[in-house]
Order: sequence, then structure tokens, then C-alpha cells
Amino acid sequence: MWNFKTPGIPDEEFERAEKVPITKEEVRVVQISKARLKPGQIVYDIGCGSGSISVEAALQIEPSGKVLAIDYDKNAIELTKKNMIKFDLSNISVIHGNAKEKILDLEKADTIFIGGTGGDTKEIVELSENKLKSGGRIVIGIILIETLYSVLQVLEKLQFESVDITQITISKSRKTSKGTMMLARNPVTIISATKI
Amino acid sequence: MWNFKTPGIPDEEFERAEKVPITKEEVRVVQISKARLKPGQIVYDIGCGSGSISVEAALQIEPSGKVLAIDYDKNAIELTKKNMIKFDLSNISVIHGNAKEKILDLEKADTIFIGGTGGDTKEIVELSENKLKSGGRIVIGIILIETLYSVLQVLEKLQFESVDITQITISKSRKTSKGTMMLARNPVTIISATKI
Repeated sequence: MWNFKTPGIPDEEFERAEKVPITKEEVRVVQISKARLKPGQIVYDIGCGSGSISVEAALQIEPSGKVLAIDYDKNAIELTKKNMIKFDLSNISVIHGNAKEKILDLEKADTIFIGGTGGDTKEIVELSENKLKSGGRIVIGIILIETLYSVLQVLEKLQFESVDITQITISKSRKTSKGTMMLARNPVTIISATKI
Repeated sequence: MWNFKTPGIPDEEFERAEKVPITKEEVRVVQISKARLKPGQIVYDIGCGSGSISVEAALQIEPSGKVLAIDYDKNAIELTKKNMIKFDLSNISVIHGNAKEKILDLEKADTIFIGGTGGDTKEIVELSENKLKSGGRIVIGIILIETLYSVLQVLEKLQFESVDITQITISKSRKTSKGTMMLARNPVTIISATKI
């Protein structure tokens, strides 16, 4: 359960599993904010991993909205289900399979989050153009330089406007015996845009 | 007006004035998330500047809650009032003066944001200990190394737990004639903690 209205559930509140990635708290909060959510919306979470974005989105869109969480990794699907139960949510539908095939059958979305997508990010952005409602938002979390380049190239050719590229680098403190040091995390780039 | 449930109003939506600072969108979103807001809460925004944190907090705590926004700069006070009107909010009380004196008379808070406080941050953190309800949150945005050091020193002596130190560095893209470059912003450190 998360009893607050604001997003930003601490990472340690989620169920975790080895090798299933989680979008960390601060980056997750920025991604959720770029999506501009409101109650009743339909949200895809493509490459849902541990389901942390699905959970935060589900809380924001309330029971009148629905999150469709997709992953090709069975462990991710199981973990997302566990987190859905842990946070007492019933508005997440979990879909196991290849996002490129699975999203073709889904109802149109107000927001599409794209995360770890095993090299298919460009193709999924292309498919997302047709699945987003006009005025809908796409939010893509990117680690690899090659993915960043290919998404930028393809976004220019599609029906998107207000493209925002934000790179975030987070450091967190650690107490040592001699004082407080900052430990750096890897930079993440978030691309967000509005469907025309 | 902001018609979304999620925080993260784009910077350009706010009224601005020369020499009055604004907490930029992505850093603001992380600060709001660290506060863990819910409807009905009492929030101080100390060193409110342009009022961007006051506006986002006021939206999250809804009309049943109240933001008390304090600044010693008259231009900041005027600007916060303008933004309160622009976003159609009536649950922000704007207080002009020295926060060290002004907060003594205020009702107890669920959350205290501390921003640009002209060298008084340490003293304001000390005073905040008594003004926060048990379980309340303090969220401090810090630019200066000296402030970071002094706040860390003082927090250890006060009744706070779950101290989190997060440094955020944001870069934003800019289109040039030859391609897309990333422009770096200065790092901001956010300290948050819970009153015991």
C-alpha cells in the first residue's frame, strides 16, 4: 500500500527478483511526471520489468483507468503481478509476450511508457504512433547510446511534437566510517513527446 | 490551470520575473515526491521564489490542505501570488518576511520545503524540528557546498530519521544546425528526512 498522492515509492518497498530491472525512484518519478497522467487513462508499460512504473501509474490513473503491462520475461511478469498485489491494485493487466505483436490488439492508449525492450525500441516507437490517441504522451527511458540515436531518428519522421530530451544522473549518499560519500549511478535519458 | 494529477508542470507555464529563481521541472518533481504529500496537509514553502513548489504542492494537497509560502524578497511574493492566480489556486497563503521569525507563529506542518534561504538554511532546519508534526517530512534543496555540509551536521543532532541525500544533475537537449547537443545544468542536492 502507498498512502500518498504523490508518486515516488521508495525502491525498497517493491518486491524484487534477481536479473529483473527496476526503474529507480527518482528516474521513475520524472518518467511518471513526463507522462502527465490523470484518472481514467489507458496506459501501456512496455518492458515493465519489476512493475514499478505500472504500480505508480496505476495509482495516478485510479481504478477508472487501466495499465497494460507487457514483458517478454516471465520473471518480470510474475514480479509485476506480485507488486500489483502488494500495492493492492486491480487496474493492471499483465501481458506476457513480444510487445511488437501484443500491442497490435490493445485498445488505444493515452500514455505509452517504453523501457527495457531488448533492442526493439525503435520498432516499438513506430508501432506506438498508431496506438496513441491524439494528444497522448510517449515516455521512453533509454540507457544505450545506440537506442538514443535510433529513437531520435525515428521520432522526427513520426507524428509527434513537443519532443523533450532529459538526461538524469543521480548520486546517492553512503555513510562510511570517515564521513558521507556520494555514489554515482549511470545516466538515464528520458525522451517524451506528444502525439499530434 | 494544470489538468493532470501528476506533478511536473513545465517551467514555461509559470509566470517568471528577473532575478527570482525557479526550481526547475525535473528537480521540482523529485522534491515534491520526497515530501510524500496527501490531501489536507499543511505545507511550508520556505524561500518560495517564483512559487513553483507552492503551486505543485497546493495541487497535491487539494483545497482541504494549505501551503504557507514565505520569502523575504517582495518580488518573489508578488510572483508567487501571480502563479497562484494563474493556476487557479486558493490554498496558498503568501507571507512576506524573514522565515526565522515568521514560522514561529505558524500552525504545525506535515511537510516543510526549504529552498533559497540566503545563508540561513541551518537555522531554519533547526527551527523546523519544532514546527513539524511527528512523521512529517522535511525536504531541502541545496546548491552550495557550505549549506550541504552545515545541514548534514545539524540534521544528525536533531530528531530526524530516514535521512536521504540525492544529488541530481540534469542535461537538456538543444537542436543545433548540425544535430542535437546536451546542455548541462548545475547539480542540486536534495536532503529529505522524517521527523521522529
